[in-house]
Amino acid sequence: MLRGRGGRLAVVGLGPGGPATTTPEVAERLARATDIVGYATYVARVPERRGQRRHASDNRVEADRSRHALDLAEAGGDVVVVSSGDPGVFAMAAAVLEELEAGSVAGRWAGVELAILPGVTAATAAAALVGAPLGHDFCVISLSDVLKPWELVERRLDAAAGADFVLALYNPISRHRPWQLGRALEIIGRHRSPETPVVLARDVGGEAQAVATVALGELDPARADMRTILLVGSSATRRFHDASGHEWVFTPRRVPAPAD
Amino acid sequence: MLRGRGGRLAVVGLGPGGPATTTPEVAERLARATDIVGYATYVARVPERRGQRRHASDNRVEADRSRHALDLAEAGGDVVVVSSGDPGVFAMAAAVLEELEAGSVAGRWAGVELAILPGVTAATAAAALVGAPLGHDFCVISLSDVLKPWELVERRLDAAAGADFVLALYNPISRHRPWQLGRALEIIGRHRSPETPVVLARDVGGEAQAVATVALGELDPARADMRTILLVGSSATRRFHDASGHEWVFTPRRVPAPAD
Repeated sequence: MLRGRGGRLAVVGLGPGGPATTTPEVAERLARATDIVGYATYVARVPERRGQRRHASDNRVEADRSRHALDLAEAGGDVVVVSSGDPGVFAMAAAVLEELEAGSVAGRWAGVELAILPGVTAATAAAALVGAPLGHDFCVISLSDVLKPWELVERRLDAAAGADFVLALYNPISRHRPWQLGRALEIIGRHRSPETPVVLARDVGGEAQAVATVALGELDPARADMRTILLVGSSATRRFHDASGHEWVFTPRRVPAPAD
Repeated sequence: MLRGRGGRLAVVGLGPGGPATTTPEVAERLARATDIVGYATYVARVPERRGQRRHASDNRVEADRSRHALDLAEAGGDVVVVSSGDPGVFAMAAAVLEELEAGSVAGRWAGVELAILPGVTAATAAAALVGAPLGHDFCVISLSDVLKPWELVERRLDAAAGADFVLALYNPISRHRPWQLGRALEIIGRHRSPETPVVLARDVGGEAQAVATVALGELDPARADMRTILLVGSSATRRFHDASGHEWVFTPRRVPAPAD
């Protein structure tokens, strides 16, 4: 089927915080856009431009928002859907593709030229704040059980902790999910010593940025909120103070072979 | 201990390809630097500037390079160590911190102001090229057994595939490691159907960028090389053609609860 005369749609990542981590290709696309679509908090991060329409919506309406963006592009717009961090990591890219797939059966949105533009994801930005805790194999897991069964989250935590991966935990806690992080730390604690470094990074790159490293055995889940990402070390992850007294956390590149 | 009168050192990620994905904070740091340090291929990606010294070295000399960069900074330089992608994902940040930790015992490098600046990592950039295959929980694993025992790689692959994570495989193959990718795909194949989509992305963001999606059961490991990253889908990862005929790959956000 030939493309129609529709417009284009980019699903972009703004990076974790301010404009300092937004890539030039994303910034350029935002500057040219006729329509900015997204969760209100992220739309507010885009500099306002005359003549550009802004479509800010609530959280948890990803499907509606995706169809709206596809419709605006089909009608000829130069549309950008914004996510924080990277759009492909627990963000809008999958939501847009779910809708595009459903619509493609009926031949919908054939005129839309779609692109996904990556961004710096929260896990690596949080890691950079304290050193290099993701310096070795790691797993990225959302603790939200809104869209998946909690049993699957537990199974994945157990497998990843058991195989000694570093863990990056997104969406650790919210008003409606108060106990999940505590349970997750319990599962991880079966495989890790209480001294394992855990990094809590809140509002990474934003104005309220705060980062702390605590031992797994001393971590109170109430220290995290929905804007916090947690990085839980592997058995090899270390913390040390440099000669000026600054503390760093990293996972060495080398894992020695087990002694005979 | 008070900081001395040394300079500063940034370990930065250039993003996966050209300047379009290098963040403004990294670009600014590069523009001010007195010294650029790194693997020759990545140093060559930094625009040359008058008066700026370039210290390009071979691969596999990460420890020497790290000490050299710390020494240059201690002597008052404004030094940048460059990595491709993100510096904290199988790159230079961990190497620098390993050396800094070793030196801190003797009080070395107390005058260096160190920062790690994140970048877009190859996994999310590769994912964006085809859609959103990392749209759900995923693991990032290096297949290189140069610095870790191969048994650990196998154990992690088995655990991650068994718990139905999407897998991002870095360093899949090289002249000195010809069989590891085939063996890895065999392990993953115990847990996944032969139809599972696998994305091969080569030289992401670079001039020789090439991307293909193939079924796990039909994948010839010889299609990958050391500049390729592989994304192996979970059981939920889907591929479809949109109404204009373009193929997309994504992992849906929702995982249904098992039927009773």
